Amino acid sequence: MKRRQTRKAPRARGNEPLPATVAWQGDADTGVLHVLDQTLLPGRVKTLRIDSAAELIEAIRSLRVRGAPAIGVAGAYGCVLALRAGQGDTGLEAIARARPTAVNLRWAVQRVRAASGGDPALALQEARAIHTQDAAACEAIGRHGSVLIAPGAGVITHCNAGALATGGMGTALAPLYVAHRKGVRFRVFADETRPLLQGSRLTAAELRFAGIDVTVIADSMAAIVMQRGWVQLAITGADRIARNGDTANKVGTYGLALLARAHGVPLYIAAPRSTFDARTENGAAIPIEERDADELRKLGRVETAPADANVFNPAFDVTPAELIAGYITEDGILRAIEIAPWLAKAGTADSK
Amino acid sequence: MKRRQTRKAPRARGNEPLPATVAWQGDADTGVLHVLDQTLLPGRVKTLRIDSAAELIEAIRSLRVRGAPAIGVAGAYGCVLALRAGQGDTGLEAIARARPTAVNLRWAVQRVRAASGGDPALALQEARAIHTQDAAACEAIGRHGSVLIAPGAGVITHCNAGALATGGMGTALAPLYVAHRKGVRFRVFADETRPLLQGSRLTAAELRFAGIDVTVIADSMAAIVMQRGWVQLAITGADRIARNGDTANKVGTYGLALLARAHGVPLYIAAPRSTFDARTENGAAIPIEERDADELRKLGRVETAPADANVFNPAFDVTPAELIAGYITEDGILRAIEIAPWLAKAGTADSK
Repeated sequence: MKRRQTRKAPRARGNEPLPATVAWQGDADTGVLHVLDQTLLPGRVKTLRIDSAAELIEAIRSLRVRGAPAIGVAGAYGCVLALRAGQGDTGLEAIARARPTAVNLRWAVQRVRAASGGDPALALQEARAIHTQDAAACEAIGRHGSVLIAPGAGVITHCNAGALATGGMGTALAPLYVAHRKGVRFRVFADETRPLLQGSRLTAAELRFAGIDVTVIADSMAAIVMQRGWVQLAITGADRIARNGDTANKVGTYGLALLARAHGVPLYIAAPRSTFDARTENGAAIPIEERDADELRKLGRVETAPADANVFNPAFDVTPAELIAGYITEDGILRAIEIAPWLAKAGTADSK
Repeated sequence: MKRRQTRKAPRARGNEPLPATVAWQGDADTGVLHVLDQTLLPGRVKTLRIDSAAELIEAIRSLRVRGAPAIGVAGAYGCVLALRAGQGDTGLEAIARARPTAVNLRWAVQRVRAASGGDPALALQEARAIHTQDAAACEAIGRHGSVLIAPGAGVITHCNAGALATGGMGTALAPLYVAHRKGVRFRVFADETRPLLQGSRLTAAELRFAGIDVTVIADSMAAIVMQRGWVQLAITGADRIARNGDTANKVGTYGLALLARAHGVPLYIAAPRSTFDARTENGAAIPIEERDADELRKLGRVETAPADANVFNPAFDVTPAELIAGYITEDGILRAIEIAPWLAKAGTADSK
């Protein structure tokens, strides 16, 4: 997928590529981080120029840039901004804490810290390496996962784990892109993914642009779509995978996993090694971010609930490993019991 | 619950009662049907004056009045409008066809047709009887269902099956109102119910006004709420219940039923006899209405998906009887196998 770096046109057009999710332009001293503002999609395409850690933290918290691998890449570049502003370890720590559930962010910041010794130029070099490796991991995930997609299959996904969520072609969507490239014909159902609609706004837009047959459904329609026999495979991304395979991902993934199990549909999690956390034993140890109640109380100017309604708004949930058929990684498709040995052998951020 | 008939204030205030869902004012020749426009809630409270069958059909199709029992009552009054305008059986049939899934609408129209012989005054008399009986059925459902609500329980519901969906205090919400009246303390989780948000807009508003502890969640959060052990009971309404107990209700109910089963939470369906259809053998015979794709593509001025995205938007799904613990009716709580004998004994619209 080719993308332009920046664009002025205020309206998205269905047949134009989107700018890069995350891109660094220039050198370490004067360069700028460009981040596509995903809160405005699909209606508007706007790239933000970010030149301070504080701006990046705001962009991460507001989900202008989102998706575990993408915020890892953005966080790595953010370290350059923090270090050149003299913010040192305090600045890096603030970036690492911008969102609590995804492990890629902290992993990336730690990796840049260790490699740079505080030098912005070395930090940029490491951030670029993280970005390049993430893109390569996406490609490999796509290659390994594409074999799961049979001709004529229906595939369901939740949230957005595509190019907009990574430094490359995506995690959950990468197998779809590779299968499509190989000429396999299949159909995708995209859960809209309330409250922030990453499925209908982002996944639907991405897949349509690539020419893949995608149908938007409300999250509550996944069950009837499976009941009708239209789905043979479920794939999602992840924000953190524990050593035992328990997986935190966008809220609704756990429910989707139960529906998939009830209909005999296998659920695969697609994620690079940086999303696996060897230090988290199981799902109970993963912190679940709760977000502002207003995400459920209004949308634009529409009051979607009484203005002072009580709301429970967790951003993620945890799917137990026993509901997951396999994990599509850059090293192949793993079973849950294979994760711990793989992490030990492969060497992870934890050993750095 | 006392309600005012009409109100001019353009903004809803949390501590004021809502006007009646459906109310007839005046005699058969000059009277008018008042319908609360539920598409504007919770932001605005506006009652529509309806004096033709065509206006009523538009209001039903647009979900200004919705909920199987409420559209049955509204449809019955609509027969008065059709008959006094000389539209005869053609007019009545158009009302009966306004929405295909709920059986109450056709049941009510047939009952008015049979009782009136085309006379508007007799039609109004029958419509008033249907309205009164619906309110009484709601009360009885509330009384029977309230025993299911243990002190301290968490109860989850989907869509709105409350006063706004009926000619009385509701079906699924009636047991909550009665338990609350008896001083039982419990907590309710209201699925927001995409795409039209009847849960967050209507159920949350109704329960809050009654002083019941209610928390809004996205539909995709029902699973994590159950995983945390916060829910001991699920109750929803129904649009049509087949003779074997298979139940059509707002899309998402089937998924909720599977999640409830996976967590050992019993699901009850609350509905009056008019929602049971002795002529529908099982769920496969229930027509499922599909609605406009734009319900998922925009909300107010916000583009929630690409403007030309493919969309699948069924309004209902069918929950198989084996996932339903019981049916809360005006005659008590039934098991699925008790439905057919009850319908045969009780005498239904089918025998008319």
